[in-house]
Amino acid sequence: MKLATLKDGSRDGQLIVVARDLKTACIADGIAPTLQRALDDWGFIAPQLEALSVQLNTGKAANSFEFDPTRCMAPLPRAFQWADGSSYVNHVELVRKARNAEMPDSFWHDPLMYQGGSDDFIGPCDDIVLASAEWGIDFESEVAVITGDVPMGVKVNHAGEYIRLLMLVNDVSLRHLIPAELAKGFGFFQSKPASSFSPVAVTPDELGDAWQDGKVHLPLRSVWNGNLVGQPNAGVDMVFSFPQLITHLCKTRRARAGTIIGSGTVSNKDAGNGYSCIAEKRALEMIATGAPVTDFMQFGDSIRIEMLDKNGKSIFGTINQSVVESGES
Amino acid sequence: MKLATLKDGSRDGQLIVVARDLKTACIADGIAPTLQRALDDWGFIAPQLEALSVQLNTGKAANSFEFDPTRCMAPLPRAFQWADGSSYVNHVELVRKARNAEMPDSFWHDPLMYQGGSDDFIGPCDDIVLASAEWGIDFESEVAVITGDVPMGVKVNHAGEYIRLLMLVNDVSLRHLIPAELAKGFGFFQSKPASSFSPVAVTPDELGDAWQDGKVHLPLRSVWNGNLVGQPNAGVDMVFSFPQLITHLCKTRRARAGTIIGSGTVSNKDAGNGYSCIAEKRALEMIATGAPVTDFMQFGDSIRIEMLDKNGKSIFGTINQSVVESGES
Repeated sequence: MKLATLKDGSRDGQLIVVARDLKTACIADGIAPTLQRALDDWGFIAPQLEALSVQLNTGKAANSFEFDPTRCMAPLPRAFQWADGSSYVNHVELVRKARNAEMPDSFWHDPLMYQGGSDDFIGPCDDIVLASAEWGIDFESEVAVITGDVPMGVKVNHAGEYIRLLMLVNDVSLRHLIPAELAKGFGFFQSKPASSFSPVAVTPDELGDAWQDGKVHLPLRSVWNGNLVGQPNAGVDMVFSFPQLITHLCKTRRARAGTIIGSGTVSNKDAGNGYSCIAEKRALEMIATGAPVTDFMQFGDSIRIEMLDKNGKSIFGTINQSVVESGES
Repeated sequence: MKLATLKDGSRDGQLIVVARDLKTACIADGIAPTLQRALDDWGFIAPQLEALSVQLNTGKAANSFEFDPTRCMAPLPRAFQWADGSSYVNHVELVRKARNAEMPDSFWHDPLMYQGGSDDFIGPCDDIVLASAEWGIDFESEVAVITGDVPMGVKVNHAGEYIRLLMLVNDVSLRHLIPAELAKGFGFFQSKPASSFSPVAVTPDELGDAWQDGKVHLPLRSVWNGNLVGQPNAGVDMVFSFPQLITHLCKTRRARAGTIIGSGTVSNKDAGNGYSCIAEKRALEMIATGAPVTDFMQFGDSIRIEMLDKNGKSIFGTINQSVVESGES
């Protein structure tokens, strides 16, 4: 099934069930008011949402309405945990190579993961509002999962059982703030403003054959200012699967329902598939010519991120955002 | 007023108002079911809770009952954001000096802050359950604030207005996992298991004169295995006040209601005031004798953290935990 969250003036929005073709939806009221509430009691709530989903997909749901992604918040407008991995090690290696830094060999077997802010996600069509383009504004196109309650010390062969939903992410990054922040040793903070998510979160079965080995085997499309700049396959060169990322997260603690875990910027070794963030493009330019040519995003720029199934149909709906100046100094 | 959250089998618990002397409490049902809900609509909810608090403190509240901290969850059992500063730069300098590392001068004017996991806080008297004492289990005694909605780019002279409540924290750390994790550059992750908080969160006015310049001017007491090992004054040597930490957090994004911001391990330059984490004690031993003598916590160890007012009365109640082996490998 496919779920989304409508803007209704509240902090957590209104849970809706969305048809497979993303054309219609219906309110899930009477089942669960919000997605977090559904995740909190998934075993009881999910079958009821599934039943409504079947009705909707067969044209039998009462009170269905046209689905409009511009009215959506992030599926979880605020979450209790957002942890972002960096599973496409190729991306990490490229960025390091561009600045003549050796990548430790351990990065191939010990996942990178950072804790992100999760109190204020922005909707799929909401503006990216920032005070300065001098910060080096970049998009990062990723896939993410939402988990149920995961026990501490979960083993990798069981970790996949806790995946409830999948989404796309734009993990907005402020590139020029990153070096100083990482040098302090405490990880990203100011360099990671609010992230945005696809209009729709889907259960793994919606991906059919494309969901295998805890990876999504489909191209992730990034369209920057109207130009398709990347379509790397998210199932290729993903060194750490989502179950492996969950295991990493839960080594010393539990993860509670509604935890979002990101894949990291999707990247293929085959550079012909383009890029999912500008930093990677610039890294390739650095390696080729000694200097980056492509600028980061400017105010007024747009970014679209989506994933199509084998028949060219959008699975998650489209992240479609513009970068806007806040007017704050 | 003083607020706490009772264990009631739900994920967010039951909001209660607690008497100033921590002896009695009453359920805030009919006002707000949970602390997050109160924070979500503070302007409307807080005056009603205040009125109930006055009734309770004057012995006029109906259905009051004995306050029992062992029945408490963390005031926010799960939160949408937990960001921990490192405001007592003396602590950072000592730990660095012990390993012969220079501390950048910028640490005196640019706050360190890391994003922590907030999906699964543990109650003030809950066990610290971990799989291995080899990880170097340490307590970290801190003060924290809970904010309302803070705008992006807030200025320091206004940031204090968004502080709703204060608490104590035990920011449990796994010291032997930290060096490898920080070397990866993405900050703490596995080295920071679930944190615990004091039984009670209090509004700033409950601190009276002790709340000044965005700092709490009282000793923070840490009692390890029955021995008072530290009582540094939280108002002394705090280089970055809470308003400064809020400003740092909000440089590139908003903070939403229920954001928790920690002070970092409380530490005074006067070593006679003892320590708020074992790492600092070990650093002092390293500097004095070339080797640490004090071991980290073992299974069965206990830690108590509290803050007393000028009359020796506990303000926040006591964090009182034991370290217990999980039985997981």
